[in-house]
Amino acid sequence: MGEIKLSQRALQTPPSPIRRLAHLASQARRAGTKVYHLNIGQPDIESPPEFYEGVRRFSDKVLAYEASSGNDRLREAWSAYMNKTLGLATSSSDFLITTGASEALIFLFMTCCDPGDEFIIFDPTYANYIGFAAIAGVKLVQVDCAMKDNFALPDKSAIESKITERTRGILLCSPNNPTGTIYSKEEISMLLEICDRRNIFFIADETYREFVYDDHTPLSVLHLAPRNDRVIVVDSLSKRFSLCGARIGCLLTSNKQVLATTLNLAQARLASPTLDQWAAAYMLENISLDFVEQIKRKYERRRNVLFDSLATVKGAIAHKPGGAFYAVVQLPVENAEHFASYLLSEFSLNGATTFVAPASGFYMQNGRGLSKVRIAYVLNESDIESAVDVIKAGLDSYYTAVPARRSA
Amino acid sequence: MGEIKLSQRALQTPPSPIRRLAHLASQARRAGTKVYHLNIGQPDIESPPEFYEGVRRFSDKVLAYEASSGNDRLREAWSAYMNKTLGLATSSSDFLITTGASEALIFLFMTCCDPGDEFIIFDPTYANYIGFAAIAGVKLVQVDCAMKDNFALPDKSAIESKITERTRGILLCSPNNPTGTIYSKEEISMLLEICDRRNIFFIADETYREFVYDDHTPLSVLHLAPRNDRVIVVDSLSKRFSLCGARIGCLLTSNKQVLATTLNLAQARLASPTLDQWAAAYMLENISLDFVEQIKRKYERRRNVLFDSLATVKGAIAHKPGGAFYAVVQLPVENAEHFASYLLSEFSLNGATTFVAPASGFYMQNGRGLSKVRIAYVLNESDIESAVDVIKAGLDSYYTAVPARRSA
Repeated sequence: MGEIKLSQRALQTPPSPIRRLAHLASQARRAGTKVYHLNIGQPDIESPPEFYEGVRRFSDKVLAYEASSGNDRLREAWSAYMNKTLGLATSSSDFLITTGASEALIFLFMTCCDPGDEFIIFDPTYANYIGFAAIAGVKLVQVDCAMKDNFALPDKSAIESKITERTRGILLCSPNNPTGTIYSKEEISMLLEICDRRNIFFIADETYREFVYDDHTPLSVLHLAPRNDRVIVVDSLSKRFSLCGARIGCLLTSNKQVLATTLNLAQARLASPTLDQWAAAYMLENISLDFVEQIKRKYERRRNVLFDSLATVKGAIAHKPGGAFYAVVQLPVENAEHFASYLLSEFSLNGATTFVAPASGFYMQNGRGLSKVRIAYVLNESDIESAVDVIKAGLDSYYTAVPARRSA
Repeated sequence: MGEIKLSQRALQTPPSPIRRLAHLASQARRAGTKVYHLNIGQPDIESPPEFYEGVRRFSDKVLAYEASSGNDRLREAWSAYMNKTLGLATSSSDFLITTGASEALIFLFMTCCDPGDEFIIFDPTYANYIGFAAIAGVKLVQVDCAMKDNFALPDKSAIESKITERTRGILLCSPNNPTGTIYSKEEISMLLEICDRRNIFFIADETYREFVYDDHTPLSVLHLAPRNDRVIVVDSLSKRFSLCGARIGCLLTSNKQVLATTLNLAQARLASPTLDQWAAAYMLENISLDFVEQIKRKYERRRNVLFDSLATVKGAIAHKPGGAFYAVVQLPVENAEHFASYLLSEFSLNGATTFVAPASGFYMQNGRGLSKVRIAYVLNESDIESAVDVIKAGLDSYYTAVPARRSA
């Protein structure tokens, strides 16, 4: 009797490009090297004291199941927070709380698509969308966005040409992970117009909605289409409030059938964690609006420092993005994954090295993004400068070892 | 342009039979009626002080993502706790922490099965297995277990006759939800023998492992097959420690390929909640072994009170089960779901009513279990007595209203 075999779908689910070099980082740390983590969107920002105050105030003796649709106070507080800060008119009954935005997206792929159905995404894309699609058996169809256009959407015909009989929707993350690009009101309106005409869903991943810099103001798709049955917002507290570990996301739509049907999936997993939801509700009820504003200014300064530093790296190419806290950077190397591994396993500067995510994992299309990395500017300004110094010195050392590694 | 359509798979995912009458219970409560919740496995037992002490001791300023495989301290503490209490030799590296046992089972269906592949389950079954299978596109094939045999497994040939080319494994919950049946060493060995011979997986859901009464001692499949690549244990802290709201489960196997492949799925959802894992690790490191022993004795007394009370309900039939905290009870009614709704919406005794789960939702096969309910004896002894008094008086009132409702 041979080895027991696993499913094709599981074997085909890609490891996270953000995490798959993590063992090299662990080895470096064990060897005493400091590692600057620019690979993952884990901010160093302190979580709000109001969240921890909520944790302290939780007084139930029995840590019981929460409702499958989420804690009612959290749904109300989230709705009120959005209405107040964005001038919207959401209702708490439009919300379904999920275990992170990840779970919301997995549920939505399942609710919108039967296996083999298609969803349009924009390439490069948040790598975990590929994992969610593998889990849900959904075929992602990519529309290419070019670095030279700062990853703006192509024109309508290029998008419409990808729509088939099996297309069930379009998924857009704005501001974007991994590119940091903010999509304009006109671009999002164009997508809404396509979705309305083709009667398909529009899922807006607004995890980074408030992180917009320069003269931008936060834009929700609900500003453009407040009560459209084809529109579903996916949101998360992870980045906005530096609460990645609380795993609190939601989906939000005026489409009652989507909510009711997704609730059946949510009932199967019973509920999201009780204490985290309770503390998040307390936080949203009590937090100053200034909290997010302060974080935003901090990221804007970090972005500026990152780009000032990158300007000194010969051959590095990147467009300064307007939002989120990511940038896709082209490095003067043939194989950025190999270079990223090199930094972790063979190089250090002043006892430190830098962990960047190879961008190839963010591209659906094989062979794209090979010379690029995604940088998350989630560290303080001084660490960002030091981390780029590592990349700069690392490139010199990398070429010196093998000159052919330099890209043409 | 018509209404936008949802996926067939989502529309076919059944609402939870445990939760689908919940709106009637809410209405009853709003009308001032006390509701005895025997419908859901939500214990009234206070969660361990050691868990809340762990919550208090968490001092990270940034609530960051946990590792996708789970908190290392929790994996070590869980492994040590099992080894100490069960005399096993598990290793922390055998564990993958999940957001409840629910997520572990969804992951495992995906890891073991491609869409359309089959898994053997025993009917009646934990209703959410049906939901997990719908999510994963797995076809559940039921082997019938009869109430008259106290839901014991049928003989080997009846099980083997259900195995096809597409069967990827057998899933058994012991002690069982919904029946409370403890499967014997011989029954589990028989299943292991089938799985070995047919080269398919054996998944043991051991959520209720320690809740065994009379002269039983806890049995893990790992006692019988400590390092078998076909064996996967699913476990949970929810019931054993009355921590349903913490959503902490795990899968546990010596099969490194299952662990590595499932980790790719786990990476897509990033991580389980950080604070709950941290507190659970602290709890497992510090809790007295007496905690579970005390809870167990409490459930045993409750079971005895439930069965003493049920003995006074004319026409009710049930076999006293040896474990978990559930029992399937046949009531002298044609349609137990209708009766359960009646209790919630039209009946009360001394200002109180009782919520029981219709057993039909726990049967894969349509038309079975129509006269049965599942009772979770998760309330104190006095409440259980009162809840059964409601059922007893409710039956009289139900027949008086429409005599034909009484079963033949």
